[in-house]
Amino acid sequence: MNHGGDIYRNKVNMDFSVNLNPLGTPKEVLEAMQESIKRSDVYPDILHEDLLSGLQNMFGISAATITFGSGASELITATVRAINPKTALVFEPAFTGYTHALDAVNCSIKRVILKEALGFKLTEDELEAIKERPDLIIICDPANPTGLNVETDVLISLLNKAKENGCKVILDQSFYLLSDNSEIFPEAEINSLIEKYDNLYIIRSFTKFLAIPGIRAGYLLAAPKNIEAVNRQLPEWNISVVAEEAMKAGIDVLRDGEFVRESLELIQTERDFLQRSLMNLGLMIFKSNTCFVMFKGPEGLYESLLKKGILIRDCSDYPGLFKGFYRIAVKNHKENEALIEAIKEAKYEL
Amino acid sequence: MNHGGDIYRNKVNMDFSVNLNPLGTPKEVLEAMQESIKRSDVYPDILHEDLLSGLQNMFGISAATITFGSGASELITATVRAINPKTALVFEPAFTGYTHALDAVNCSIKRVILKEALGFKLTEDELEAIKERPDLIIICDPANPTGLNVETDVLISLLNKAKENGCKVILDQSFYLLSDNSEIFPEAEINSLIEKYDNLYIIRSFTKFLAIPGIRAGYLLAAPKNIEAVNRQLPEWNISVVAEEAMKAGIDVLRDGEFVRESLELIQTERDFLQRSLMNLGLMIFKSNTCFVMFKGPEGLYESLLKKGILIRDCSDYPGLFKGFYRIAVKNHKENEALIEAIKEAKYEL
Repeated sequence: MNHGGDIYRNKVNMDFSVNLNPLGTPKEVLEAMQESIKRSDVYPDILHEDLLSGLQNMFGISAATITFGSGASELITATVRAINPKTALVFEPAFTGYTHALDAVNCSIKRVILKEALGFKLTEDELEAIKERPDLIIICDPANPTGLNVETDVLISLLNKAKENGCKVILDQSFYLLSDNSEIFPEAEINSLIEKYDNLYIIRSFTKFLAIPGIRAGYLLAAPKNIEAVNRQLPEWNISVVAEEAMKAGIDVLRDGEFVRESLELIQTERDFLQRSLMNLGLMIFKSNTCFVMFKGPEGLYESLLKKGILIRDCSDYPGLFKGFYRIAVKNHKENEALIEAIKEAKYEL
Repeated sequence: MNHGGDIYRNKVNMDFSVNLNPLGTPKEVLEAMQESIKRSDVYPDILHEDLLSGLQNMFGISAATITFGSGASELITATVRAINPKTALVFEPAFTGYTHALDAVNCSIKRVILKEALGFKLTEDELEAIKERPDLIIICDPANPTGLNVETDVLISLLNKAKENGCKVILDQSFYLLSDNSEIFPEAEINSLIEKYDNLYIIRSFTKFLAIPGIRAGYLLAAPKNIEAVNRQLPEWNISVVAEEAMKAGIDVLRDGEFVRESLELIQTERDFLQRSLMNLGLMIFKSNTCFVMFKGPEGLYESLLKKGILIRDCSDYPGLFKGFYRIAVKNHKENEALIEAIKEAKYEL
């Protein structure tokens, strides 16, 4: 299996294969997690009451429309099981975890390949496939591995078409808080989407935003009957006390807003730097709205950088992509500079 | 929902409703968890290599026969999904989590009620139900809420009958390491069971043994093809770095053996104390082989103790049990004495 972040079977000094908030974990969240270990001898709250009231206050929505998971991956798996689709529509290239979750229920997958010439942007054209009435559509906003936000009018059109055709929709917004659009659909407005579309499941992750992939934390927003169905598929006590406390502290960070702004500012500045630098090296880049960048480079670049202790994501295993497609995380300036230097060297060597 | 450990909606000073190792968490494990927070910014190892080699060395079995979960509850859910039974046989009273997992796949449950007159012991008589060829049998050793170990000849008979009748078996040994039988089937001999019975799934928990219910950690032992099928049902990266490090340290503790011996000694001494004291109060107790005790007491005892800040498990919601059945954890001597005092007072008041 190929995936980002495999630092266990590679000798890695800098990991650009995993996409996280380049600002790192807020101090309050780290402290809350350290402190939580003292509570390792009690069961987590099976009803998540504190956490629920935190999100409820932020979104101004009913607690019945929220549930929590050990990362987006647990929620994707559980949601797919609750829906139990026979057929699903996925726009490729897309996060490989969707295939894992759909395979687990023996769902047949229709893969619509997005157009490279349009930078793999989702357009009205691809929505034609909804007419085939798949049981489920999975979309990712921003998309992974491209980093493109879904355009608001395309999203709304997709939701309407899905509703007309009796399809459920999983909207995976794992990177949403770290994307340029994060202020277009602010947390407080998500409410009206859930109310309008009872076929919609929105998944958000704290893993990326708080840079805590080792802890696993995310939440799902959907109509109450859908939340009930997903809860039936989740193990009891699925959230550790560490994830519980990380999310509670994370909600405070979100509400404060300052960390979100700083994160986005750093991402945008450094993404520009990476993209300009890659272009200056004669490499083709794809537009991104979030904390990672896809580009086309010489074959062998992955191996060449790995020899220098730098791990990037070789994207050749994504449907719709080929050898020479790579994805890199946006990290801090020093690391980004080091990466660009290493790519420059590797290019000469290849 | 009624379950143990609900300290979130009750004002509790002493929680006897949750069953854990009364010795508490070993210092090495606590330290490993504290230290693991520094690794919250990296993904856990998706292949669990370090953990696998730890268990592999201990059991002397192939890594292909092991997988890990965020607690036994995640593994029960995933195993049930991998088996996808239409019919299941459960011997009641039994852990209520089985119903949750079976409901999630819309499985119909045949509940065979064990005989109170025999202390709810599983005997050859109840194994007759296997002739109806259920897709799945779930047994718990030691049983919960009684705490009785399954007798070895009954277990072997059950496994043989299950094999003859084409039934899969989940053997939930969540409390096994804290039970009197833990030395009868030592970890190293489990191997031959897995080899002989390719219909057998053994689930063990670190949660109880290491007293870390807030963290969630367990493992599953089964034939390689069965492990593969369960892995398909688990989310990727399902083990947090905290659970990973807790289990690694826990394996060292297990191999050392001293902590296991001390735990059992304390459990046996204090269980005797609790049982004798309850009998002296004129209450009927049931035999237990592990760190909790079921007894019959006056109606209203649960509420009465709760007023004193003591939470016990009211067992009236278990199939086969009624009002007046209670379960208490075996804790340290001071706490056990306090509980007995409180029950004595409550008895006078009721």
